[in-house]
Amino acid sequence: MRHLYHLPISPASRKVRLVLSEKNLAFEMIEERDWERREDFLALNPSGEVPVLIDEDGEVICGASSICEFLDEVHADHPLLPGTAHERAEARRLVDWFDNKFAAEVSDGLIFEKVTRRFLSAADGGGAPEMGVVRAALHNLRYHLDYISYLMETRSWLAGDELTLADLTAAAHLSCLDYVGDVPWAQYAGAKDWYVRLKSRPSFRPILADHVPGMPPPKLYANLDF
Amino acid sequence: MRHLYHLPISPASRKVRLVLSEKNLAFEMIEERDWERREDFLALNPSGEVPVLIDEDGEVICGASSICEFLDEVHADHPLLPGTAHERAEARRLVDWFDNKFAAEVSDGLIFEKVTRRFLSAADGGGAPEMGVVRAALHNLRYHLDYISYLMETRSWLAGDELTLADLTAAAHLSCLDYVGDVPWAQYAGAKDWYVRLKSRPSFRPILADHVPGMPPPKLYANLDF
Repeated sequence: MRHLYHLPISPASRKVRLVLSEKNLAFEMIEERDWERREDFLALNPSGEVPVLIDEDGEVICGASSICEFLDEVHADHPLLPGTAHERAEARRLVDWFDNKFAAEVSDGLIFEKVTRRFLSAADGGGAPEMGVVRAALHNLRYHLDYISYLMETRSWLAGDELTLADLTAAAHLSCLDYVGDVPWAQYAGAKDWYVRLKSRPSFRPILADHVPGMPPPKLYANLDF
Repeated sequence: MRHLYHLPISPASRKVRLVLSEKNLAFEMIEERDWERREDFLALNPSGEVPVLIDEDGEVICGASSICEFLDEVHADHPLLPGTAHERAEARRLVDWFDNKFAAEVSDGLIFEKVTRRFLSAADGGGAPEMGVVRAALHNLRYHLDYISYLMETRSWLAGDELTLADLTAAAHLSCLDYVGDVPWAQYAGAKDWYVRLKSRPSFRPILADHVPGMPPPKLYANLDF
């Protein structure tokens, strides 16, 4: 059996869960609070971060981008980087957009302030969220929802006619923000329609069932009519 | 002819230049000060960042990771992600290490403080470097040079027996720091030996000839005996 070291409110971990499910690959999850820097986990991944996949043959694959490219190469049946080299480049441009630009401008800060801080000791930065960081992230979020809506004016999925790794990447980030109740979907019809379609996929069900102890999701989190 | 929008002291731009040269693909460079957010450049790449490649057929490809995967797919003669899927995963793990972990802990801060600030107006953050950021980056750099030396104890190149995109990525970052004179090579023999071999490759020559106006490189920058 495959094993995935993950965190529930981690876009990188959720992206790998979505890719595994889209490819119908069974796996078991092990929650790894990577900020605790556990020795045995550092031996698996010297960068100390989730996700880490232990494949069926025991091979260790570290990091979402490495894991996703690996799974798409080895399990090529439902390609998540389909089409021509140019179409794949467009999908990877958007993967990069969400994993780097969106992460830096929105999700990294928001998730650290609203989720990670709850689990840290005061000495390590635990405590109440810094509201300045939260406000800046929520301000930036609107620009990205606009961009998704703009892309949806001419495309079925983010990178073109087919669902790609770009959609799963963006949805992984947005589903984490949705868990903390921060996405103003109602004002972005194009982005909302796109997210409804993703949320309805079987691969999304386990993510909609996530429940962080002491931090229940808002009512609309798992609802398809939100 | 291909055209590459780039900046000279940008690890992402240098990585693409190295990949193009390793694959013997001719290209012309256009310097783009992306912090100026020029309208015509934003129309090419909505993220507003270098590098952007205009391919021979006029197609636009944005972002180093997208460009490098594209070039390695389309020009497969000298593969930069060679071997098995597991070997490619190891190379991509290390690409990710340098483009994200090394960038966040070392190169982003150091290059912003020592290079970018020179070109910004005072209102946009121009001026003298913040020495606290510089010191933290130089402290973190030692840990990464140790990691390269550690990998070199058992490998010929970062990801294994062959040169990969991981080596070009790491060298792109380190060559930028070398330009500002910040790498304590003498204390890291394994890392230095690896960098000497990269620096000796024909693909590295144009990078060693870089010269930012008003900011000459240190004497040893282009020297193979450093």
